[in-house]
Amino acid sequence: MEIGFLGLGIMGKAMSMNLIKKGFKVTVWNRTLSRCDELVEMGASVGETPAAVVKKCKITIAMVSDPAAALSVVFDKDGVLEEMSSGKGYVDMSTVDPETSSKISEAITSKGGSFVEAPVSGSKQPAEAAQLVILAAGDKALYEEAIPAFNAMGKKSFYLGPIGNGARMKLVVNMIMGSMMNAFSEGIVLADRSGLNPSDLLDVLDLGAIATPMFKGKGPNMIKSNFSPAFPLKHQQKDMRLALALGDENAVSMPIAAAANEAFKKARSMGLGDLDFSAVHEVVKQHKD
Amino acid sequence: MEIGFLGLGIMGKAMSMNLIKKGFKVTVWNRTLSRCDELVEMGASVGETPAAVVKKCKITIAMVSDPAAALSVVFDKDGVLEEMSSGKGYVDMSTVDPETSSKISEAITSKGGSFVEAPVSGSKQPAEAAQLVILAAGDKALYEEAIPAFNAMGKKSFYLGPIGNGARMKLVVNMIMGSMMNAFSEGIVLADRSGLNPSDLLDVLDLGAIATPMFKGKGPNMIKSNFSPAFPLKHQQKDMRLALALGDENAVSMPIAAAANEAFKKARSMGLGDLDFSAVHEVVKQHKD
Amino acid sequence: MEIGFLGLGIMGKAMSMNLIKKGFKVTVWNRTLSRCDELVEMGASVGETPAAVVKKCKITIAMVSDPAAALSVVFDKDGVLEEMSSGKGYVDMSTVDPETSSKISEAITSKGGSFVEAPVSGSKQPAEAAQLVILAAGDKALYEEAIPAFNAMGKKSFYLGPIGNGARMKLVVNMIMGSMMNAFSEGIVLADRSGLNPSDLLDVLDLGAIATPMFKGKGPNMIKSNFSPAFPLKHQQKDMRLALALGDENAVSMPIAAAANEAFKKARSMGLGDLDFSAVHEVVKQHKD
Amino acid sequence: MEIGFLGLGIMGKAMSMNLIKKGFKVTVWNRTLSRCDELVEMGASVGETPAAVVKKCKITIAMVSDPAAALSVVFDKDGVLEEMSSGKGYVDMSTVDPETSSKISEAITSKGGSFVEAPVSGSKQPAEAAQLVILAAGDKALYEEAIPAFNAMGKKSFYLGPIGNGARMKLVVNMIMGSMMNAFSEGIVLADRSGLNPSDLLDVLDLGAIATPMFKGKGPNMIKSNFSPAFPLKHQQKDMRLALALGDENAVSMPIAAAANEAFKKARSMGLGDLDFSAVHEVVKQHKD
Repeated sequence: MEIGFLGLGIMGKAMSMNLIKKGFKVTVWNRTLSRCDELVEMGASVGETPAAVVKKCKITIAMVSDPAAALSVVFDKDGVLEEMSSGKGYVDMSTVDPETSSKISEAITSKGGSFVEAPVSGSKQPAEAAQLVILAAGDKALYEEAIPAFNAMGKKSFYLGPIGNGARMKLVVNMIMGSMMNAFSEGIVLADRSGLNPSDLLDVLDLGAIATPMFKGKGPNMIKSNFSPAFPLKHQQKDMRLALALGDENAVSMPIAAAANEAFKKARSMGLGDLDFSAVHEVVKQHKD
Repeated sequence: MEIGFLGLGIMGKAMSMNLIKKGFKVTVWNRTLSRCDELVEMGASVGETPAAVVKKCKITIAMVSDPAAALSVVFDKDGVLEEMSSGKGYVDMSTVDPETSSKISEAITSKGGSFVEAPVSGSKQPAEAAQLVILAAGDKALYEEAIPAFNAMGKKSFYLGPIGNGARMKLVVNMIMGSMMNAFSEGIVLADRSGLNPSDLLDVLDLGAIATPMFKGKGPNMIKSNFSPAFPLKHQQKDMRLALALGDENAVSMPIAAAANEAFKKARSMGLGDLDFSAVHEVVKQHKD
Repeated sequence: MEIGFLGLGIMGKAMSMNLIKKGFKVTVWNRTLSRCDELVEMGASVGETPAAVVKKCKITIAMVSDPAAALSVVFDKDGVLEEMSSGKGYVDMSTVDPETSSKISEAITSKGGSFVEAPVSGSKQPAEAAQLVILAAGDKALYEEAIPAFNAMGKKSFYLGPIGNGARMKLVVNMIMGSMMNAFSEGIVLADRSGLNPSDLLDVLDLGAIATPMFKGKGPNMIKSNFSPAFPLKHQQKDMRLALALGDENAVSMPIAAAANEAFKKARSMGLGDLDFSAVHEVVKQHKD
Repeated sequence: MEIGFLGLGIMGKAMSMNLIKKGFKVTVWNRTLSRCDELVEMGASVGETPAAVVKKCKITIAMVSDPAAALSVVFDKDGVLEEMSSGKGYVDMSTVDPETSSKISEAITSKGGSFVEAPVSGSKQPAEAAQLVILAAGDKALYEEAIPAFNAMGKKSFYLGPIGNGARMKLVVNMIMGSMMNAFSEGIVLADRSGLNPSDLLDVLDLGAIATPMFKGKGPNMIKSNFSPAFPLKHQQKDMRLALALGDENAVSMPIAAAANEAFKKARSMGLGDLDFSAVHEVVKQHKD
């Protein structure tokens, strides 16, 4: 199958390489075209513009950095829309808000094309290892057609229903994650101040029913107050806020998430927004003897 | 090594069997002596009383049901104390509060004996599979002497410092667990009311950074409103309360644990105290259309 | 001074009557013109349209039901804008969100007019008794010019700075009020379940440092589960949400308000949104013996 | 009527003076007897010991500093118990915990005497002005007999039922107060960071439905970061904890009180426990630009 791929940042490069390795014919485009070279060496073709890629390929995938870029590749001159037509599919795997996604969806379908949003769970390393989790929503037929490509890039893909559900699933997962991080931090501090060794707590946790990759990965760094950002606290707090807003819309009371959100806000007010979201630990452990 | 073993309930029976299987000579006692038969068939000796067991063995382990039973085997007529003396060790693996543990510790050491508290993380199945996690505290030399026995019963043992630290570690772990359960429940409800399939959420969680045995084990039952008790909600709430009290003593502010505790209290007030602690889900999802 | 007055609902009628009683010459307009009759009997003139009122009066006050109506009287055909010009002032006393207020402000000032937003604290009874508290913001000179009119309608007016600050002050006050209502409800339930008489609690509160008109006014009805709406719960919850959003913007962590907001959301999910905001009491006291 | 009065601290002195002023014959005792002089000048008699006072008087009132002192005047040599007998009444107006109160109650009644606990709401100034609020519980007949004395010392007395209910009522009131203080502090900080003048907020609050003496009294000092202790934060937090424990006993979920308690604990962890309980404001406003 001929697949178009727009956006060769850290994620997009790894993903498009995995497509090529699994035997897909891939036509790539990137704003800075020189980033295409490495892909070309592996066998990719290059499209001069998003429009050119769409013209050539039945299915085009985008993986760009933010909502503004996602809108730009679609709506700008020489953008996706210019060549979109019946029979063609567009799959946006960027992380964008539901409104951006809806706007793109409407534009694509008004041209007769079909659209799937498919944000991913997982960052650089899982992208390279083809271990992403893909949260797809939108046109079911296009989703099914894209499964072989999804399988080349990820370990599992989900079809979650109408447009917006991909973004919603990410919010729910991140909300649980944010509350867990707070609970974990409270436990570390309680252990420490009660005369236990926090490292022992990490070891005990890792052997029991609530062992999780996050505790194992972040715990030792938290104890050493190392908060170099994998997922910045301000983004985690934004996701908590959006998840709470989703709850508000649907009259879901979430006292744990609300308390966790306020802790993240306190961390922001203390100037920790650009550190890793585990830096909420600084707020929890704050203490004056 | 000759090991005494007091208490052959579900846990104690499995644990003493593992000792025999790994080659220890074991002398058992149980309040209802007939429960010793199965062990005798495997090669155990029987002691008529706790005192008789202690008299015969250098190290005696107890695994009884609650603090009252833990005190009784030590202090009653024909109890552990009567034969405790210098050179002998007593290891209480029952789950008891710190005061009970201190009381036993003082009595044992006043007789010249040495004492270790060693509550376990894990229930019936891990006990049978010798996969318990052992949270030991107290006399360091006795702990080291008991390591081969611990290794026969569990996958890992920890030495956590002075008496009381075993119980404290359990509280910290259970506190994190209780907060996580609430966060998980909020996520399931938010997913459901936002038009997502809660089963998809479970699948997505299980593939990511916050995958945990608890979510995998409890999630499907929670979605089906199946709350048959593994760990009763009222006990979970009691542990939250005790963990918060420990935090109060040490001036540790724990807003997430506090919010989770209030949710468990609401569940108790709704009559759900005897169900599994995951039944807090009933409170979170309560809704009238 | 000649004052225009747009909107003769419950509030507007009472307020314009007070202006007349205090000697102002008032020209009134209402969408349903027949509601002007009572005012005419007291000496008011009638304007056929908002534009006609503005043409005639140096200062025009509006008191309409919601943001849509507030926009409509300004922007529709025959609206305020058509006759707005340099030297004229427009005072909107309706309760609207900051964006609506900004939109009106920009339109008025682009025509050369001056604008004050002036939402009020207080409902029907204080409006009739000229006991409103007026939260004004915007053009300082117009505010000062309008003071005699404010004094005729309220017991106190505040000038709070730039446009938006009137609405913000209302949010802060309502946020404190919502948290207090929850604290009060928790106290009533705790008293009741601990064997105290909730009526005694009300009496004790009323004699002490935290006596407040709200406890005195709402308490007896709450005990009788009488929640006929003075300020609907769904509006209170909306104000909590907006206050929390204001806090989010400014990195202010507000755990009490967040917990109160979740309780109000629970009340909404239980179908209590149209009752008085004191109906959160139903959630707090929910209990199964 | 002849009234005995034990304890002439700040509160006791003011209260016994009010009894004398209203025409009661009063016999006083104080650990440091010289503190009796001023009362003697006003017409009081002096008892050499608590026992001597009880021997002479039908009703004896105690107002001492803490539970230890309350137990001491009753149980020590020459204490109240030695002369307690049928027909005599003992009224303890000190602030003590329910267990202390029960212990005293049992001792008094075992001697045939009758007992009322009657902690007060109000401090020095209301004591001097005979404006205390008296929260009485225990023997109903003795309560009624003591009403004229209560009326001489306070503006209002309540009979709240069985022993313990006086202390419980104080806890409920202080719990509401602690939550309100947090809500108030959040409001001040939100106002300040949103560009409003916190003093304007105080003025607006004071004119509306949630005006309360506490906001009026504490607000200006909070804005100036003046937290000289009227009611120390660590005592407020202790009362929150006890109120939450009372709620736990009775399965009452109180998320607002729990969140407020955690904020007070954070304040304690920051070293603010000896300041006024309004010093929780320091935690709420903590911020780094």
